[in-house]
Amino acid sequence: MVKIKVDLEKRSYDILVGTDILSDLGKFIESQKWGKEIVIVTDPLVNDLYGDALRKGLKNFRVHTLEVARGERYKNLKVAQDLYNSLVKHSVHRDAAIIVLGGGVIGDLAGFIAATYMRGINCIQVPTTLLAQVDASIGGKTGVNHPKCKNLIGSFYQPVLVYIDIKTLTTLPAREIRTGLAEVVKYGVICDADFFKFLEENAHHLNTKAFESPDTLRAALKVWQIIVAESAKIKAKVVEKDETESNLRMILNFGHTVGHALESLTKYKTYNHGEAVSIGMVAAARIANCMGMLKADPVARIENLLEKLGLPTQIDGLASAKIIKALGIDKKVAAGKVRFVLPEKIGSVVISDKVPPKIIRCVLKEMGSK
Amino acid sequence: MVKIKVDLEKRSYDILVGTDILSDLGKFIESQKWGKEIVIVTDPLVNDLYGDALRKGLKNFRVHTLEVARGERYKNLKVAQDLYNSLVKHSVHRDAAIIVLGGGVIGDLAGFIAATYMRGINCIQVPTTLLAQVDASIGGKTGVNHPKCKNLIGSFYQPVLVYIDIKTLTTLPAREIRTGLAEVVKYGVICDADFFKFLEENAHHLNTKAFESPDTLRAALKVWQIIVAESAKIKAKVVEKDETESNLRMILNFGHTVGHALESLTKYKTYNHGEAVSIGMVAAARIANCMGMLKADPVARIENLLEKLGLPTQIDGLASAKIIKALGIDKKVAAGKVRFVLPEKIGSVVISDKVPPKIIRCVLKEMGSK
Repeated sequence: MVKIKVDLEKRSYDILVGTDILSDLGKFIESQKWGKEIVIVTDPLVNDLYGDALRKGLKNFRVHTLEVARGERYKNLKVAQDLYNSLVKHSVHRDAAIIVLGGGVIGDLAGFIAATYMRGINCIQVPTTLLAQVDASIGGKTGVNHPKCKNLIGSFYQPVLVYIDIKTLTTLPAREIRTGLAEVVKYGVICDADFFKFLEENAHHLNTKAFESPDTLRAALKVWQIIVAESAKIKAKVVEKDETESNLRMILNFGHTVGHALESLTKYKTYNHGEAVSIGMVAAARIANCMGMLKADPVARIENLLEKLGLPTQIDGLASAKIIKALGIDKKVAAGKVRFVLPEKIGSVVISDKVPPKIIRCVLKEMGSK
Repeated sequence: MVKIKVDLEKRSYDILVGTDILSDLGKFIESQKWGKEIVIVTDPLVNDLYGDALRKGLKNFRVHTLEVARGERYKNLKVAQDLYNSLVKHSVHRDAAIIVLGGGVIGDLAGFIAATYMRGINCIQVPTTLLAQVDASIGGKTGVNHPKCKNLIGSFYQPVLVYIDIKTLTTLPAREIRTGLAEVVKYGVICDADFFKFLEENAHHLNTKAFESPDTLRAALKVWQIIVAESAKIKAKVVEKDETESNLRMILNFGHTVGHALESLTKYKTYNHGEAVSIGMVAAARIANCMGMLKADPVARIENLLEKLGLPTQIDGLASAKIIKALGIDKKVAAGKVRFVLPEKIGSVVISDKVPPKIIRCVLKEMGSK
């Protein structure tokens, strides 16, 4: 088991990464004395797959399991209200802990509930998707969507533990693995050239085929554990330096400016998050290149790696004018300007709000936008 | 102007207390560089009384004023959602600041909006009631009510400034002044015997009659400024030692265990907050006395002071069984036990979850409960 500390003074916590460790969580909670009552928030599919393994270790607790329908469209205030009602119905107290078992959507939603139920109760993130393991579960970003803007309602609220079982990756569909890989590639580009190179060298292992035979499975889980732990380390370091995304943490939004615009324009239906971010990273790299900040070679390396991993790098026919309009209500807008995270080289990015709209339009068109 | 610092590391902020200072807030905000966009959240009455004075100083900002209907029953998720919608409609950005102009209800509600809009934007509390000035505006408790439980949905989110204009007290009805005085008395009991004595000696000044003539007004404002500043100092010290009410901060709930039960039982109609807390303080003092922790003399002093200030010290006919049942879902319940804050003497309290229900019942009956 790998242990990564997220150092945030009184709000510090550990990320534990291991394989086949779900049933051991209960023992860990007991050792921490986090109360006797546990609310598992999960969805029906994840509950079927992993709920029993988790509950097996929770025999010494009073456990409630609350299921939420799967999907980004249920990450809203209405469903949040249903969860508050369930907590009240079960008379859940302030010293109970919520265990979030599932992907990033349920992590955001249940994390927000933990942040706001009785002004905050302990939250243990148990992410079961690659995307949630390497990104969403770490750093305390919680929230629900507003009809007009993703994650508009939310808060920064750190969990008391992030508990990652690599084994859960083996039941993910290939597209879910790919969406997580987009964020993994992001970490390489924004701050770790060696990690980026490791990904280039191991790209052929990074797919679900490796899970199909017991021999390759064991080897694959080892590689995945390295990748997840390294990604978690990078994310933790950035979060430590900037807990509330006032400055440095914005580099984590590399690829997300255009990415969020695409997701919101296509109503979160055409692209999943990683796919949108993949296209967004290509857009940001090309913008950086157009502005003379980044050479052509790293742009090509980024595009090649994403393609090798099966991620999209082109925009399919969306009008550039619409994308640019959608950028206008993106959260990463400060005082009316659109803020981009632009690479200077693999492993280093800068934040800029001085990208001329003409360059954005030109790059979007190059990438297949109308 | 009195400046009190609330020292909470990165979340530190100042409380400024002065008289007739509303129009100067804009200058202060400019000096802090808190952005160029301000959203004032207020209610129609307070907006009529003080909105223009505040806006007069905000000529260099883009200002939106959002009015919310007055009253505790509008402090709910539905109204919160309306506010999110308004912020989205005005394309309010993450670097805007919310100025909360009003009493504790609007402070909790708009503080919660500031805490959760785009994961938190700057919040400036400008409390205009005594209760909000000495208590609710300091310490970052925000929230809205759930039909089954007051403040069930909320978070700890510190403002960047609390800006108190004593002059606003002069337009408060007598009952509003009294409700704030209950919290002022509380501070004396929980940690400052000298302050309690000062209140006993000055009780005859502490009413709205003093505002009626210009001569007594000037003298009264001086006394009020001392009382508000001292109360704010005590609250700030407690908050500094325990930001998220995990331990010490619970002493601020002196009088609130029974107080909240009474409010919730009577659906927030019979008693206002201070009246309920006043009765709750008497109950807690009498419980402490019954348990042999507190002598009879300080119990009498607490009751006498509250009565002098026009606050209730008796329960009017509510069934004790109902009050005890209502205590069961109070937030101050840890692991199924009811937690009381009990005075040992004027100026010192302890927290106890070992009060026998029999003693609670007996004290409630003594105080007029059925």
